[in-house]
Amino acid sequence: MPGPVITLLTDFGTADGYVAEMKGVIVSLAPDVRIMDVAHDIPPQDVARARLAVTRYWRRFPRGVVHVVVVDPGVGTARAALAVESDGRFLVGPDNGVLSAALALPGAVVVSLDVPGGASPTFHGRDVFAPAAARLARGEPLEILGARYRTSVVTRIPPPVRGDGGRITGEVIAIDRFGNAITNIEATAAATVVVAGSVVPVVTTFADVESGCGCALAGSSGFMEVAVRDGSAAQALGLCVGAPVEARR
Amino acid sequence: MPGPVITLLTDFGTADGYVAEMKGVIVSLAPDVRIMDVAHDIPPQDVARARLAVTRYWRRFPRGVVHVVVVDPGVGTARAALAVESDGRFLVGPDNGVLSAALALPGAVVVSLDVPGGASPTFHGRDVFAPAAARLARGEPLEILGARYRTSVVTRIPPPVRGDGGRITGEVIAIDRFGNAITNIEATAAATVVVAGSVVPVVTTFADVESGCGCALAGSSGFMEVAVRDGSAAQALGLCVGAPVEARR
Amino acid sequence: MPGPVITLLTDFGTADGYVAEMKGVIVSLAPDVRIMDVAHDIPPQDVARARLAVTRYWRRFPRGVVHVVVVDPGVGTARAALAVESDGRFLVGPDNGVLSAALALPGAVVVSLDVPGGASPTFHGRDVFAPAAARLARGEPLEILGARYRTSVVTRIPPPVRGDGGRITGEVIAIDRFGNAITNIEATAAATVVVAGSVVPVVTTFADVESGCGCALAGSSGFMEVAVRDGSAAQALGLCVGAPVEARR
Repeated sequence: MPGPVITLLTDFGTADGYVAEMKGVIVSLAPDVRIMDVAHDIPPQDVARARLAVTRYWRRFPRGVVHVVVVDPGVGTARAALAVESDGRFLVGPDNGVLSAALALPGAVVVSLDVPGGASPTFHGRDVFAPAAARLARGEPLEILGARYRTSVVTRIPPPVRGDGGRITGEVIAIDRFGNAITNIEATAAATVVVAGSVVPVVTTFADVESGCGCALAGSSGFMEVAVRDGSAAQALGLCVGAPVEARR
Repeated sequence: MPGPVITLLTDFGTADGYVAEMKGVIVSLAPDVRIMDVAHDIPPQDVARARLAVTRYWRRFPRGVVHVVVVDPGVGTARAALAVESDGRFLVGPDNGVLSAALALPGAVVVSLDVPGGASPTFHGRDVFAPAAARLARGEPLEILGARYRTSVVTRIPPPVRGDGGRITGEVIAIDRFGNAITNIEATAAATVVVAGSVVPVVTTFADVESGCGCALAGSSGFMEVAVRDGSAAQALGLCVGAPVEARR
Repeated sequence: MPGPVITLLTDFGTADGYVAEMKGVIVSLAPDVRIMDVAHDIPPQDVARARLAVTRYWRRFPRGVVHVVVVDPGVGTARAALAVESDGRFLVGPDNGVLSAALALPGAVVVSLDVPGGASPTFHGRDVFAPAAARLARGEPLEILGARYRTSVVTRIPPPVRGDGGRITGEVIAIDRFGNAITNIEATAAATVVVAGSVVPVVTTFADVESGCGCALAGSSGFMEVAVRDGSAAQALGLCVGAPVEARR
């Protein structure tokens, strides 16, 4: 790539200027960097929400990109600060599972970032993760940033349960901005999905149901999603994260 | 320009990671691109809001820029996916009127984007529009991306009605973040504006009225706006989109 | 630096397209610029909130960067539009105190920006500040942009009051997105902090208190912050901007 790329995901919001401080640190250390915002409006300390987002985007970027992920309720505690190299991408973030998608891949290499003496105990985003990301973006090797680390937190999406007659029982793992309910059931040859007392047909595309009607279809990450055409499945069907979902042949 | 520029407008929010997936696809295909965010907080499926925003900014950017506009309630239906070349700029987005400003210009060239076989039926932003934008940004000609298309949806701002004595009757077409009500009446030599039962003077600048007072003035897009100095006209005067507005000499 | 960098802080939101208009103007005049968003969700016309954010980030960026700060309730009045060079950075914004951190530094040079004839009286962000920033980013000298200006508004953080027995009495100057209350008391050797009827210990890091418990600690800007581990101090302790805070030995 012509010059380094760093992406940023935080729960800092933007109005307080914390993210801007991180950008200033990054561009000071890696002057030709292109910084790409992912999101800063993750609900405060919602590690699971951030983890799912990272799972979606981290490998859509080319090799060499550095992903900064700072949703870090444990800042200032003994939790490790990590840098990861996985499938040619780099990630930095706290050891709380938020980097699970990259950590779970065979061949992932992990180091525990050294925390500089003057680092603020409340703002590792600025004083630990941003400098590490800039150094990786400049081409410094991972091993320079800290010692190898072997016991990092890896959170996996819970697998669904296969039952009689091809039934698969799973759950809603996320609700997106449109009110679509993303499940942990891989896109499948099911005919119907039962969720929160509603039975919805499995279709190929929104066009297969009328406006306002519910359906289930293969979402863009490969999992079954429950949706309502031109509406919010979460609202219309009363869905929330953790709601059980059953796919039937 | 030194390297391609792509702008992004969506209603995806950012926290789910969908926009980041698009950015990853773009930078994978156009490694030296600069991506500029327009907005991702368009209310879900609010095509009109996005259309007005595009109208404001698309020609403020230099020729050669590629504007990606994905507010797409019809994704997965038969609506076409468009790429447009107009006045030297490029735009990609669904055929639902969101690109009207560029489509309405004489000389606009439109193609219907081919949808790749493996494209997700729920996420053309990632699988259709982002790759097309990256290819245009790299300099590939529009015609390679799909067949010429001639019947695209063009939504025009409704014209105001001219009445007796120089009266002009229009309506509120948008409320902005400050509560200013943007009308469809071009900035004009009117003396007063009547809206929602209030009569406000037409002034040159906010300084012409006291704090808390209503006024109408030429907005930054050339249309009359109803405003309240240091306040929200929408709240103070009870205005909403569609409210009738009358300009009087 | 390899090419100019401009940062943007506004209260415009993004959905109306105003910020995108500014970006279009900037990239038209400075084609190789990298634009870095700071925030656009400053509450409308909240000059104090923007001023505190600027204070945090403006010197985290390297010399030569241009910071655009447009929170400008006085647009269209006689308030001056400023460009500032301070400690090697450049800033443009209205003369309402929002640039105080840079203005207060010895050696700051200030000019009053010329307002072009056709400038919209409601949108100096696009027609005055964006072009000035682009010209500074291109390397044009400050003096070309307007006449020297000497009486700009500088708002200082109110100093705390030192009392008997090492007591220091200050106030909450900001609440951040996490509900942390940032005070005007510099990080100090105090043992306890009294705020809104609660007494909290002064600690080094969140790890020094149990989850859900209040504490005070040195924040990332060098001021004492009142926080609740894994929670919001503002909510739990009923804090708001202006609440008195007392640090005790």
